[in-house]
Amino acid sequence: MTTTDTRDTTREHPAWLPGESSRHLGGRRVYIDAHGPLVDTVRSEFTRAMAAHGGRFVDVITDAEIVVILVTEPMAPNPAHADVAAVREAAAAAEASPLTPEGYILARRDSVTAIVAATDHGALYGVLDLMRNGEPAPGVRREQPAHPIRMLDHWDNMTVHPVMGAVERGYAGDSIFFTDGEVRRDLDRVARYARLLAAVGINRVAINNVNVHRTEALLLTDKLPDVARVADVFRSWGIRLHLSVNFASPVLLGGLESADPLLPEVAEWWREATDRVYDAIPDFGGYVVKADSEGQPGPFSYGRSHAEGANPLAAALAPHDGIVHWRAFVYNHHQDWRDRSTDRAKAAFGHFVPLDGQFADNVVLQVKHGPIDFQTREPVSPVIGALTHTNVAVELQVTQEYTGQQKHVCYLGPAWSEILRFRFAGETDGARPVADLATGGFVAVSNVGTDHFLTGHPLAQANLYAFGRLSWEPLADPLRILDEWIGATFPDADDHARAVIHSILDSSWATYEKYTAPLGVGFMVSSRDHYGPDVDGYEYSRWGTYHFADRDGVGVDRTQATGTGFAGQYPSPWRERYESLAECPDDLLLFFHHVPYDHVLKSGSTVIQHIYDTHTEGVQDVLRSQAAWAGLSNRIDSATHERVTTLLVEQVRSAGDWRDQIQTYFFRKSGVADATGRPHY
Amino acid sequence: MTTTDTRDTTREHPAWLPGESSRHLGGRRVYIDAHGPLVDTVRSEFTRAMAAHGGRFVDVITDAEIVVILVTEPMAPNPAHADVAAVREAAAAAEASPLTPEGYILARRDSVTAIVAATDHGALYGVLDLMRNGEPAPGVRREQPAHPIRMLDHWDNMTVHPVMGAVERGYAGDSIFFTDGEVRRDLDRVARYARLLAAVGINRVAINNVNVHRTEALLLTDKLPDVARVADVFRSWGIRLHLSVNFASPVLLGGLESADPLLPEVAEWWREATDRVYDAIPDFGGYVVKADSEGQPGPFSYGRSHAEGANPLAAALAPHDGIVHWRAFVYNHHQDWRDRSTDRAKAAFGHFVPLDGQFADNVVLQVKHGPIDFQTREPVSPVIGALTHTNVAVELQVTQEYTGQQKHVCYLGPAWSEILRFRFAGETDGARPVADLATGGFVAVSNVGTDHFLTGHPLAQANLYAFGRLSWEPLADPLRILDEWIGATFPDADDHARAVIHSILDSSWATYEKYTAPLGVGFMVSSRDHYGPDVDGYEYSRWGTYHFADRDGVGVDRTQATGTGFAGQYPSPWRERYESLAECPDDLLLFFHHVPYDHVLKSGSTVIQHIYDTHTEGVQDVLRSQAAWAGLSNRIDSATHERVTTLLVEQVRSAGDWRDQIQTYFFRKSGVADATGRPHY
Repeated sequence: MTTTDTRDTTREHPAWLPGESSRHLGGRRVYIDAHGPLVDTVRSEFTRAMAAHGGRFVDVITDAEIVVILVTEPMAPNPAHADVAAVREAAAAAEASPLTPEGYILARRDSVTAIVAATDHGALYGVLDLMRNGEPAPGVRREQPAHPIRMLDHWDNMTVHPVMGAVERGYAGDSIFFTDGEVRRDLDRVARYARLLAAVGINRVAINNVNVHRTEALLLTDKLPDVARVADVFRSWGIRLHLSVNFASPVLLGGLESADPLLPEVAEWWREATDRVYDAIPDFGGYVVKADSEGQPGPFSYGRSHAEGANPLAAALAPHDGIVHWRAFVYNHHQDWRDRSTDRAKAAFGHFVPLDGQFADNVVLQVKHGPIDFQTREPVSPVIGALTHTNVAVELQVTQEYTGQQKHVCYLGPAWSEILRFRFAGETDGARPVADLATGGFVAVSNVGTDHFLTGHPLAQANLYAFGRLSWEPLADPLRILDEWIGATFPDADDHARAVIHSILDSSWATYEKYTAPLGVGFMVSSRDHYGPDVDGYEYSRWGTYHFADRDGVGVDRTQATGTGFAGQYPSPWRERYESLAECPDDLLLFFHHVPYDHVLKSGSTVIQHIYDTHTEGVQDVLRSQAAWAGLSNRIDSATHERVTTLLVEQVRSAGDWRDQIQTYFFRKSGVADATGRPHY
Repeated sequence: MTTTDTRDTTREHPAWLPGESSRHLGGRRVYIDAHGPLVDTVRSEFTRAMAAHGGRFVDVITDAEIVVILVTEPMAPNPAHADVAAVREAAAAAEASPLTPEGYILARRDSVTAIVAATDHGALYGVLDLMRNGEPAPGVRREQPAHPIRMLDHWDNMTVHPVMGAVERGYAGDSIFFTDGEVRRDLDRVARYARLLAAVGINRVAINNVNVHRTEALLLTDKLPDVARVADVFRSWGIRLHLSVNFASPVLLGGLESADPLLPEVAEWWREATDRVYDAIPDFGGYVVKADSEGQPGPFSYGRSHAEGANPLAAALAPHDGIVHWRAFVYNHHQDWRDRSTDRAKAAFGHFVPLDGQFADNVVLQVKHGPIDFQTREPVSPVIGALTHTNVAVELQVTQEYTGQQKHVCYLGPAWSEILRFRFAGETDGARPVADLATGGFVAVSNVGTDHFLTGHPLAQANLYAFGRLSWEPLADPLRILDEWIGATFPDADDHARAVIHSILDSSWATYEKYTAPLGVGFMVSSRDHYGPDVDGYEYSRWGTYHFADRDGVGVDRTQATGTGFAGQYPSPWRERYESLAECPDDLLLFFHHVPYDHVLKSGSTVIQHIYDTHTEGVQDVLRSQAAWAGLSNRIDSATHERVTTLLVEQVRSAGDWRDQIQTYFFRKSGVADATGRPHY
C-alpha cells in the first residue's frame, strides 16, 4: 500500500509494466542460451532489472536461477540442460509437443525458473510473462497464441482533423506517432507502448487512420523513411508495422488517371510502391484498406468487386509475406430513413459472402464483431460464420467510441468474450466458436494517446490489456484476465483494493448497458460525437441506425416474416431463435423485433418497465462504484485515484442524463406510468 | 432584359446600387450649394455618374436640372432660389416644418429635381434616394428617419473561431473587416458596403462579434489604429463605428485585478481607454456589451446590477457623445430541462424591468424582438413595453440564423413589420406601436460577408435592404419596400420578372414558417448549427427551449393559471389574450399553451392536422417558387439566376426534410392518422 505516487511522473503511467514488474527478473542469476534479434531485447530487460534489483548473468547453466533457452527441431542435445530439473522438464514438454514460433514453456522446479521457446520471439514472450505474473508456481506451463495475427489498428491522423481531431474516435490525447503533419521525432513513448503491447502478445500494429486523408496517404511513399523509424521501434518488440492506405493511391500518389484494380498499370503501381516499402522496412506487415465505405474510394467506382479490389494489393505484398487487411465495413451511408425495407445490418453479408473464395490467400477480411458498428450490444456478425473460404479477422473496438469514451468505466472483456465464444451452430457438440472461425486473427482499434494514463481513464488500460490477452487466448476467462491486469498494474494494492477494483470493473459493461440504449436497440447517442444520450439523435438520419419508437412500441423488425430479413443471414438455430419473439434473447429483443411497450420479457418485466428499471439501476450501480472507489483513496497511488475520482463524477452525471432522457422519452411516448411510482418529467 | 451578366465580375455583386443607379444622377446639369464633409461624397457620386453618362456641374442655379442645397435655420434668403420652382417649393416646405438633421426634401417641378436638406448628411441621403428610386414624380416629398440610431451589428471574429467560424451565425463567407487576426489591409469592399448601407439609411455599425474573444478585445486598445482606418471608411458615408467590448476588459487588457464596475480604478480605466479611442476616432459611436450572457463576463460576477455595470462605461463615453448598447439577452444557459417551472422567456424581463430608470441617458438597452432568440415566430418581447424610463433599441436579426441560413428564401420584412406595428395596449386609439417605443432606435445583426453576392443568397440582400428602410421608416409597408428593392437591384428586369421575384419573396417567411416548427413553438432545429430539422434537438438540453411534446399533446404552458406565468409579463389586453386558450392567436398557440393534438384552432383545423397540412403546403410553396424562378432564366443576369437556382434545390431538399421529420415525429407520437390519407412513415 502506498499513499503517494512514487512513480516517475515525467513519463506516462507505466500501465501493467510498473517498475515493480522488473523485480521478478532482478536479483537473480540468469543464464541465456538463445539467438535472434529479440534476444537483445530480452537481455536488456534483464539488464534493466539487475540495475534496479541486483543479479547477474552467469555462464554456467547450473549456476542459474532463471534460464532462457531456445529449443530447435530436432533439439540439439545439450547435456548440461539435463542437470537442471526445470529445464529438463520444459524441454521434455517441448519435445513431446513442438512449440509454435511464438510459444513458450515456463517451468519451475528447485527454485529455478526455465523459459523455453522455439524462437527469440517466444523467449521474449516468456520473459514478459514473468514480468506480468511474477514467479510461476512449481510445475510446467505452456503458452502459445491461438492465432498468429494479433493486431491493433490506430485511427491516428497526422494533422488534426477539423472534426475528428488528432485521433479519430480517440479519447486519450493526441497521437503518439504523429504531430503537426509529421512522424514524431521522439519515439521513446512509442517504444514504451510497444513494450506494453508485446507484454500482452500483440504482434502487429497499423499506425494510421483507416480514413486515409491526403497527408496520411504520403506515409506510403514520401514519408517512408519516417515510417521506417517507427517500424524499427516496434521491431525490437516483435511487432510488425502496417499502414492504412488509400485505395485511390495510384491516382493520389502515382498520378495515374485511374485506380481501377484490373488495370495492369495500377497493379504495377502497387507492386512498385510495395517493393519500395519493403526496401525500407523488410518486415513490413501489410496494408489496411477501408474501401467504398463512408466516402472512402474503392473498387465500386470502377465496377469491380471487393475481391478484385483487394487482390492486386495482395499480389504486391505476397512476395514479401505481407497481408491486406480489407475491411468489410461497407454499407450505404446515405440511407433514407423513410425506407424501412433497407437494413444496414444486412450490408456486409450482401457485399462479401458472395465473394467467398475469391480473395487471395494473403487477404484478411476484417469484419466488425457486430453487423452495425461497435454498439454496446449487438448480435455477432453473420458474415463471420458465413465465410468458409476467406481469411476472416474479427475486429473489436478497444477505444470506447460507443461505450463511454474513456470517461465511463466499461470493461469490455466480458463483451468480447461473449462474442468469441459465440457458436453459429448453437450449443451442439463440436460447434466451433467465433474464436476458431477467426482464421485471420484478431484486430482491434487502440485506445491509446499522449494522455498521461495512456488511455485517458486509467481503468481503460484494462481493455487494452484484455484485448491483447484474448487475442492470444480467445477463450480465456475475461475476469481472470481482469485479475491478472489488476495484479500487474497495482502491485502494491492490498486484497481489499484489488477486490474493489475488480468489483467496479467486472460488471461495468453490464452497468453501461443498463443506462444506455435498451435491449440491443443501439445508438440513441448524440450524433455529434457519440457521447451522451440523444434518443432521436440518429432517428431521421442517413446512417441506417434507427429504433422506430412510436406511441405503441419500439424496435427494429429484422425478421424474415415481416421485417428486413436480417435474421435469415444466420444459420440454424440462430435464424429461428432470432426470428422468434418467444426465443429471441431479451438483450437483443429490440435489435430483431418491433414490440409493443407492454410486451413481456423473459425476465417477467414488460419492455417499458424494463426500460424504467434498468436505467434507474444503472445509475445506482455507478453510484456504488463511486462510493467503493472513494474508499481506495489511501490504498492506491494518488494520481490514479484522483483521475478516476474525477471521471466518476462525470460518469455519474452522464449516466443520470441517460437515465432521465431515456425514461422521459419513453414515458412521454408510451404514456405508461412507472410501476414503481418514480416520476419521469 | 439582359441575357448575360455584363457587370464587373471582379467585384462583388453591386446589390441595390448597380451601375444603372448612377444613371439617375448622370447626364444632368448639377448645381450644389452645400458644405460639410459628406458633400465631398455627394460630389464624387455625381462625378462618377457624369463619367459614365455625361453631365456637368453648373454655377448658376437656373441652369441646373438637379439642385442640391442646404437650408439653415433661419434660412439665408437666396433670391436665386426663388427662380427655380422645385427649389422654391422644397424650401417652403422646409420652412413650414423644419428638417431634422438627417432629413431631406425631394421636389420636382418643370424638369428640375431639388434636394433640400438641413445638413450634408441629409443631402447625401437625398442623393442616394435618387439613386435607388430614380427621378421623383412631380411634387414635393419629405423624408426623415423616425429615429436617429439605425445600426447594424457584425458578429465578426478576427480569427476563425473553431466552432463559429469567421463570422458567428454568418452564412456569406468570411468577415469583410478581418482576416488572420488582423483588420484587413484592403478596405475597398468595406467602402462599397458602407455606400450600400448609407443608401438605406444605416448610420452606425458595430464591426465585431458581441462575444468578444481575446484577440478581438484588443480592438479597444492595441488595434485602435486599424479600427480608425475602418472608421475613416464609414465616416465618408455618414456612418459611425462602434465596437463590441468585453466587460472584463479592465482585467483582460488593463491588468487590473477586478472589473467590478463600482471600483474607482475600473471606472477610471474605462475613462482613459475611451479617451484614447476618441483620440483616434473623434466620431466613435460607442460600445456594444453582451454581459453575463452565455458565458460572457458581466456585473453579476461582482454582485452588481446591470445598471451598475453599464453606467461606468456610459460615463466614459458621455463627454464624447458616445453610447453604450447594453444587450438584454441575459438568461440561465444551464437550465435543467426537467424543471418545467423555469422559463427562459421570462428572464430578460426579470433582470431588466426592475432596473428601469437606473440606466444613464446614453445607455441603450438592446432587446431582442422576442423573448427567446430570433425564432421564426415569437411574441414581441414584453421588455420593450415595460421599460418606460430606459432607452430601448429593438434588436432584429438580418442574418438568417433560424430562418434558413441564407440557403432558404425568407424575406423577413413582413415579420419585422408585424413586430414594429405591435401595440402593447391593443388596438385602442393612441396606442403606441413598438416602432414608437424604440426610443433607442433599431439594431440588427448583419448578414454580409465576403461572398460574391454579399449575403450568400442573392435574395437575402432584400433583408438587409428592408432592415435599413424599416429602421428609417418603421411603419412602412414591407411589400412596398420589397418592390423598391426589386426595382433598384434588378433595373433591367421586365414587369413579369419583377412580379415573379416579388411573389417568391413576399410570402417566403410564411412559407418557411409552414414547414418548420409549428404554431410558435420554436426551435426543433439541429443543435449543432441551427440548420435543418431535429424535433428533439433541444428537448433535453440546457438551453431552455422546449416543446414538451408527448403522446397526448404539445406546447409550452406559459399561462399564469397553470404554467410559467410568462403571459403575465404583458399588459392588458395581451396578458388576457395570451392567457386564454380561446383568444390566443393560432400562430402563437404553442408558445403559450400545451394543448392536446385534437385541439381545434381558430382556423377550424386540429393542431395535429394543421401540423400535417402546413408542412405539406410549405414544401409545395417552395416547389412553386422553384418553378417560377426557373422561368426567369433569360430575364435576369445569369450569375444571380444560377446561384438562386442552386440554392432552391437545397431549399426544396431541406424543406422536404423538415416536412417528413416533423410529420413523422408527430404521427409516431400522436398516432393520429392524417385526414388526407398522406402516409407519414
